[in-house]
Amino acid sequence: MQPINLNDCLDQFTEHWSPRIIAALNGQEVKLAKFQGAFDWHSHEREDELFLVVHGEFTMEFRDRSVRLREGELIVVPQGVEHRPVAEQECHVLLFEPAGLINTGNASDSDKTNAATWISNCRTSPPRKS
Amino acid sequence: MQPINLNDCLDQFTEHWSPRIIAALNGQEVKLAKFQGAFDWHSHEREDELFLVVHGEFTMEFRDRSVRLREGELIVVPQGVEHRPVAEQECHVLLFEPAGLINTGNASDSDKTNAATWISNCRTSPPRKS
Repeated sequence: MQPINLNDCLDQFTEHWSPRIIAALNGQEVKLAKFQGAFDWHSHEREDELFLVVHGEFTMEFRDRSVRLREGELIVVPQGVEHRPVAEQECHVLLFEPAGLINTGNASDSDKTNAATWISNCRTSPPRKS
Repeated sequence: MQPINLNDCLDQFTEHWSPRIIAALNGQEVKLAKFQGAFDWHSHEREDELFLVVHGEFTMEFRDRSVRLREGELIVVPQGVEHRPVAEQECHVLLFEPAGLINTGNASDSDKTNAATWISNCRTSPPRKS
């Protein structure tokens, strides 16, 4: 049981739309992802999905509205609801969702489908000397 | 589906060790809590618990070690592991755990047992005018 430092984890990868798993608990996974540009429209048939903005801002588009999310804000997209995140500038997001969720959900033709991989070398540096 | 602003949620309550539920998904709950002082030793028999520091710092004590957690760091305490958070100064923490988890777990004599209540008036203010 070591502390997991979000910024240290984010320093470990550069790809957009390619989530990294940083923790697992109770059949759920905690992931970090970098958003830039527009993702594909998709939904997750049986899973809700939580997005928490760590750095930056993005818009979560729905078919009938858009919601702006800023640093320190989260949204839960319920199962079955079509959505598309769009970020003008790179945005870093924490995701909380059932283990094994595919990022593009039911968008089977998407070229942005990425199986999330684990990242493990993002622990805090040794304790500061007093 | 509205954005939930963590700071706005934190402004809605002052009590320590009294988690507020801010979101629910996939049988899990997302809570915010304010820590100050020492909690009671306890474990959760069947549930893992995630703590993410939003503001401040705290120490998660285990029976064989202590782990310091700073802003932007998280830890997962596995089911069955005894633990006790300790914060010298007020610390704000986001929790991910199964719905209905009791904060003091198996510590049935604790006076810090609090059933988590929902908080709902912590949405972002109206969008900025362009």
